[in-house]
Amino acid sequence: MSVTEETCSQEFIDLAGALATTARGIARQYFRQGLAIEDKADESPVTRADREAEAAMRKLIGAAYPDHGIFGEEYGAENPDADFVWVLDPIDGTRRFITGNPLFGSLIALLHHNKPILGVIDMPILEERWLGIAGRPSLFTDRQGSREARVRPCPQLAGATILSTAPEMFQGANGPAFQRLRDSAKLTLYGGDCFNYGLLASGFADIVVEADLAPYDYLAHAPIVAGAGGVMSDWQGAPLTLQSDGRVLCAGDPACHDQAVALLRTA
Amino acid sequence: MSVTEETCSQEFIDLAGALATTARGIARQYFRQGLAIEDKADESPVTRADREAEAAMRKLIGAAYPDHGIFGEEYGAENPDADFVWVLDPIDGTRRFITGNPLFGSLIALLHHNKPILGVIDMPILEERWLGIAGRPSLFTDRQGSREARVRPCPQLAGATILSTAPEMFQGANGPAFQRLRDSAKLTLYGGDCFNYGLLASGFADIVVEADLAPYDYLAHAPIVAGAGGVMSDWQGAPLTLQSDGRVLCAGDPACHDQAVALLRTA
Repeated sequence: MSVTEETCSQEFIDLAGALATTARGIARQYFRQGLAIEDKADESPVTRADREAEAAMRKLIGAAYPDHGIFGEEYGAENPDADFVWVLDPIDGTRRFITGNPLFGSLIALLHHNKPILGVIDMPILEERWLGIAGRPSLFTDRQGSREARVRPCPQLAGATILSTAPEMFQGANGPAFQRLRDSAKLTLYGGDCFNYGLLASGFADIVVEADLAPYDYLAHAPIVAGAGGVMSDWQGAPLTLQSDGRVLCAGDPACHDQAVALLRTA
Repeated sequence: MSVTEETCSQEFIDLAGALATTARGIARQYFRQGLAIEDKADESPVTRADREAEAAMRKLIGAAYPDHGIFGEEYGAENPDADFVWVLDPIDGTRRFITGNPLFGSLIALLHHNKPILGVIDMPILEERWLGIAGRPSLFTDRQGSREARVRPCPQLAGATILSTAPEMFQGANGPAFQRLRDSAKLTLYGGDCFNYGLLASGFADIVVEADLAPYDYLAHAPIVAGAGGVMSDWQGAPLTLQSDGRVLCAGDPACHDQAVALLRTA
């Protein structure tokens, strides 16, 4: 058993599951609830879902581990220099959420000394969840039960299916770099946000590429992708931390990752 | 009761429901089933799902109305000059399907003298369905039951949320036209295929714009959008038929539709 695996205790894993289930319930409550809610509180349903879910998760973490740090999209950083820091994005894909599209997710990461050792992607409406723990196989759970998530082989970039949220996210020098990558692959599909990383981990796509992300947008994915046999890094090929520049490259096949880094690293 | 409404008998509506349920079952059977199936038959799971679902639907139509025409994506046209013609696309969004993404749908339209009088968008994995009948309010059905689908107001294009499958579908002169439209709106989201039209009909988005579509990609949507209070046309503002040029514009608010046509019609 590696040190990292020991570090992520079953208690942490259970708490991560409880956090995801809490966020799922709140997201479901506000999904496709329109103007009535918006009018009442002068806040959009997605804003309310985001805030309520993060507040509920912070409460659970604080009760269990008052010395842990928390970094969340809605309420910022709390004790960020702690050994263990939870990184939370209650609604990743707010634009999907507000258009009634179920492809939004809740993201939970646990960092140990700034390294992600646990990650959850939860899809509240689809009732699907990916769980990654450093040093262990990743797990996919849906209504039918749990099973290992495993990437598929794709040794050549020319045969790769790329998933990415939107072409407009690649600004400046990132634009031509993304185009080089896209033009070298078989197929590129847009949309999806965090769901794309889960699909890659389960072997349904080969590359996810994004830019302009915040740490809570990518840290949860890293242990899931690694535990499924894939590689996730920044565009230079370096591991992701809280300090990464927000450009993310993820590949199921390490060979494909190398070829993609070669096209992106000059940006 | 309008002539059109009389034309679409309850028997036709019941048959459309049976067709959608049949296609849903077959799509669900093949979704996320990977290489094992592919290797055996030298066909991808999506191809098998597409063919089996269309064959099953054709059989049901043929048994009930042997004199009706059928036009399907997989098996082409049969008796296309009949008064009533069923237009079938068993898996719209095959690229989503093959990447394990549940945002694909089954499309069923019934044309009377080349005019769509009934449309179904069925989402097999989400278990959501939109039904449109000429002259009646459109219906949305999910696991919770059925209710009317209704567009939302959006009198100004500047406030509109646009949904579209992918920017690459706008080639040649369609590219700049799409860009003009996109630059005049509030937000554009990619992905979704037929699901986008359902979301618009239910008031979660304001415009869907596409190009390069086949008749089975758009005819089912027309009665759904109309029955929800929206407007669907080609880029010149003309009603859609089997002979339309594959460029589609759909708006929840007629005022927004007018503004969009003004930007697109020169393409």
